Amino acid sequence: MKKVEPRILSGFMELLPQDQIQFNQMVDTIRRVYEEYGFLPLDTPTIELSEVLLAKAGGETEKQIYRFLKGDTDLSLRFDLTVPLARYVSAHYNDLVFPFKRYQISKVFRGERPQKGRFREFYQCDIDIIGNESLDLVYDAEIPTVIYHVFQELQLGKFTIRINNRKVLTGFFKSLGLENQVTDILRVIDKIDKIGEEAVREELLDQKVSKDSVDTILSFLQISGSVSEKLTKLKELSKDPLYQEGLEELEKVFASLKDFQVPEEYYTLDLTIARGLDYYTGTVYETRLDDYPSLGSICSGGRYENLTEYYTDQHLPGIGISIGLTRLYSQLKEVGILKENQTSLAKILLVPMDKENSNYVLDIATYLRNHGIKTDVYYQEKGMKQKIKYADRLGIPYVGVIGETEVKENKVALKDLETGNQELVTKEELLKRLTN
Amino acid sequence: MKKVEPRILSGFMELLPQDQIQFNQMVDTIRRVYEEYGFLPLDTPTIELSEVLLAKAGGETEKQIYRFLKGDTDLSLRFDLTVPLARYVSAHYNDLVFPFKRYQISKVFRGERPQKGRFREFYQCDIDIIGNESLDLVYDAEIPTVIYHVFQELQLGKFTIRINNRKVLTGFFKSLGLENQVTDILRVIDKIDKIGEEAVREELLDQKVSKDSVDTILSFLQISGSVSEKLTKLKELSKDPLYQEGLEELEKVFASLKDFQVPEEYYTLDLTIARGLDYYTGTVYETRLDDYPSLGSICSGGRYENLTEYYTDQHLPGIGISIGLTRLYSQLKEVGILKENQTSLAKILLVPMDKENSNYVLDIATYLRNHGIKTDVYYQEKGMKQKIKYADRLGIPYVGVIGETEVKENKVALKDLETGNQELVTKEELLKRLTN
Repeated sequence: MKKVEPRILSGFMELLPQDQIQFNQMVDTIRRVYEEYGFLPLDTPTIELSEVLLAKAGGETEKQIYRFLKGDTDLSLRFDLTVPLARYVSAHYNDLVFPFKRYQISKVFRGERPQKGRFREFYQCDIDIIGNESLDLVYDAEIPTVIYHVFQELQLGKFTIRINNRKVLTGFFKSLGLENQVTDILRVIDKIDKIGEEAVREELLDQKVSKDSVDTILSFLQISGSVSEKLTKLKELSKDPLYQEGLEELEKVFASLKDFQVPEEYYTLDLTIARGLDYYTGTVYETRLDDYPSLGSICSGGRYENLTEYYTDQHLPGIGISIGLTRLYSQLKEVGILKENQTSLAKILLVPMDKENSNYVLDIATYLRNHGIKTDVYYQEKGMKQKIKYADRLGIPYVGVIGETEVKENKVALKDLETGNQELVTKEELLKRLTN
Repeated sequence: MKKVEPRILSGFMELLPQDQIQFNQMVDTIRRVYEEYGFLPLDTPTIELSEVLLAKAGGETEKQIYRFLKGDTDLSLRFDLTVPLARYVSAHYNDLVFPFKRYQISKVFRGERPQKGRFREFYQCDIDIIGNESLDLVYDAEIPTVIYHVFQELQLGKFTIRINNRKVLTGFFKSLGLENQVTDILRVIDKIDKIGEEAVREELLDQKVSKDSVDTILSFLQISGSVSEKLTKLKELSKDPLYQEGLEELEKVFASLKDFQVPEEYYTLDLTIARGLDYYTGTVYETRLDDYPSLGSICSGGRYENLTEYYTDQHLPGIGISIGLTRLYSQLKEVGILKENQTSLAKILLVPMDKENSNYVLDIATYLRNHGIKTDVYYQEKGMKQKIKYADRLGIPYVGVIGETEVKENKVALKDLETGNQELVTKEELLKRLTN
């Protein structure tokens, strides 16, 4: 028979089981922290009507989308979890309790040109809080608090959550008479970390921003000091009402972060954070690993006032943040923060010497499983060496061999694969050993 | 602004948060039991190359598939998790340890004509065991043992796992001289539970099966008694070697099931189980809820010898089973086995009387979360009544009110929303109350 090469598409991640275990542990941690903060789970469809999903989209998004016809129906795969949330909240408005706090951990799809570290199918782990008519600024501080706890638990080393406010940026550019170029300027500034200050200067000049204004913008972006020092310096720079409003919001958010006991070294006010997406209207976030700045932002988001306006007359402001987990995982492996995972989920492999013992073996297996010990049993008729090798290759730390003697003595021959030690134990002793 | 109706496609499931919590609890239970038995997690791409995914497919499958071009690339969404597994095992053969036991809980996609209880996007919860060259028959008993434990834990009432062997059916039809019609006959028999014996008789006659053979087949299907009685009666019916081989396999599988201590009332030998899919070659399974036969099979699978033959020369026989969870969940809600879920994940809502207390409130929240208590905090400036209503509507059982008095006394005013009782407690007492 002619064989088809069992390949997958480039830009798609598929892991070996031990990596998958590690990946799932990260998902579990993120989910656990999200739930600890009262976020509710959601799971919207992967496929949506293009008309609905693309109500707002345009430009780059539209080009990247997986869009196709099934019969006469124009369908698209979701490209993020935020637009489906806006659609969901609009559709289920009457059944939801506001502020509506939800998390969703799902795959999204973007048909980008594949490049290093970019994926076409990847997990996003999102939290969002949607208010009915209004949403208190304290929530703008709760979001980074949750993220602080997530990254603490993920143990990826020191990180910094960078916080800014779009009103400050927009107001500042307005006061320079650049109100018609705000979006373009934001896009350029957003790249400053990637392309550097000089390239930003060039691009701004290309955008017909005057040399004076470019100087003013760049020195504005370089304001330094602690959060409160920066805020004090900023207050003097412009009287623009939007600018001042943004500063007040930042002050409140940072005050709440203090209340929330997030250690100050884990967040900062970074005026260069703009976020490319045009739906952000207030607070914006990015997060970076201090020792690996080249990874870029590993967790970003912000506040949006009008995301549901395409679907409903209700005014439903929201704030949210997203961890692009597939990309993050692949980066963490690459730079070596995540080591190879050597351990299986199963704590022990039980090995019956022959089929006559299977009754006894399964007694032991059931006993262990009932006590929450993940237990694998090897049933293939192979030599003992191969049975041990199965456990060893999978990273199962213990093997319990059961033959005639063990059955007679009502025991298990427990072998520790790391030390090579072997001893005869009762099932109670076995359980004790495995729970330690 | 013109609004777009925020609707989703028919045949797609989207749940409200409280239903989603309930759905996720089922997923968590299934995953936990799968892992307890040593199955490893896998997560293959949603989108695959059509050439690869459809190497084997044909007929109905091909028609239902979501298939489309992106640029010049011919893509398809996976329609099950078994074909991707075959592809995965072929691709990663050298990195896997055999027997390879994996579970995958993921969405699959079938563009069926939407009808009651049918979904176009739905979760499958699969386990499979793949052998290298051979796979012991004990694994054919381990699969239903896992399923027995899953459904015990899901608490859906009494169920029966129905077991048969395709070799018995095929061998029996061969011995009637019907070797060229085996597939067609299996398809008809597979429907006997839905359409009844008389309709099966008609259809078989339509297929040019002689009246005598139809009678023989129908009386064969009606053989009754305990598993061992059936096996004894069956042994006399045909000398066909494939038939006898199938019977021996069944004997071994049922003997192992006994060893595995699955109570006998939870499984049976059912000769009418054929499974529509043509890749099954040995043991086949279906599972039904005894009190709700109309739901049909809620968990099906079987053994396949050649699923990877399209991708590799290696001989990799496997056995697996699948729970179609989206459909099952919707059916369980419909017949009322699953009640409305009234409870949120959060155990308590903390309510600061005013912003000045937020420091203290967050102390309490952090304390509870650190002890694993899911804790929501209400930050909107609303009246107390509305704050309580938030907890009540979400199904959060307790509210902890914190005002000046509480801060001064270092306590929390704990309100039990079910009884209406309220009392002042320390944070340690609070924790104790919430952990009970």
